Amino acid sequence: MKYGVAVFPSKKLQDLANSYRKRYDTKYAKVPPHITLKEPFELNDDRKLEEVVLSIRKVAENASPFQLKVIKYSTFYPTTNTIYMKVEETKELFDLHHQLNSGSLNFVQEHSFVPHITVGQDMMYDEMQDVIGRLKMEKISHEETIDRFSLLYQLDDGTWTTYETFLIGK
Amino acid sequence: MKYGVAVFPSKKLQDLANSYRKRYDTKYAKVPPHITLKEPFELNDDRKLEEVVLSIRKVAENASPFQLKVIKYSTFYPTTNTIYMKVEETKELFDLHHQLNSGSLNFVQEHSFVPHITVGQDMMYDEMQDVIGRLKMEKISHEETIDRFSLLYQLDDGTWTTYETFLIGK
Repeated sequence: MKYGVAVFPSKKLQDLANSYRKRYDTKYAKVPPHITLKEPFELNDDRKLEEVVLSIRKVAENASPFQLKVIKYSTFYPTTNTIYMKVEETKELFDLHHQLNSGSLNFVQEHSFVPHITVGQDMMYDEMQDVIGRLKMEKISHEETIDRFSLLYQLDDGTWTTYETFLIGK
Repeated sequence: MKYGVAVFPSKKLQDLANSYRKRYDTKYAKVPPHITLKEPFELNDDRKLEEVVLSIRKVAENASPFQLKVIKYSTFYPTTNTIYMKVEETKELFDLHHQLNSGSLNFVQEHSFVPHITVGQDMMYDEMQDVIGRLKMEKISHEETIDRFSLLYQLDDGTWTTYETFLIGK
């Protein structure tokens, strides 16, 4: 069974992201707009899940709520034809990401951490260039406080369900 | 902003429900398979949300994990052309539902409580009759322990995001 850890931002930011995602993101219907804090990982044993939950809870307790700032749109091209909202790389966010991926939570990590909210993926090159060109000219300056994150699991159809939310610093 | 409270059952039961939902449920992509414990309600004020969360947390703390038993498929016809998995009406489940809809949580409640997991809705009459006819002959006997439920909020596109999970009896 596949699990992952993510932040779901406010409804306001999710609605903005979805206004693009519904047209440009092939995973639009699989999961709400989010910032991935821990890449998908496999767990097949309930006891193991309990250990992971305890470790994550400890990380949450010892972390502090942080400011989420979205500063511009960007793209992972040429690695992938993905467009995303770039999230400011704050120390708090990197610390939280590090804690969720080290020690007993140190599973495989494929990418270096680029905090972001995907708004388009698997796009055709021409459309991606067209959309990012327009988005680069849009002013985006959103800030909010993040005080929670979620452990999710994936169903057979590829959609994600929240298993547990963790309040940061509680 | 619209909120609701629901139980998400195990991946196994969700996968089974989704095998029908993807064909017969118009809300398939809006929310994972669930049992509604509190019908959607409006909250527009952050302070009010905090009060509601505190009340729900108290309900969760004072409740006990319960057995979820799915016993057969049924339909709300002629009220609506909906097909659902019927959930056994246990005292624990009714108590939890009652607590989540009384006192400071007593908002409008439209329907009497029939615990269920919807697998088809807004169906054409003929197709509904055909599908429920087949499902009535299927053996379904699933049981699991429910130890958590979720407070969700709705985005502009109709999808639901989990705001917080509550561990029952913790």
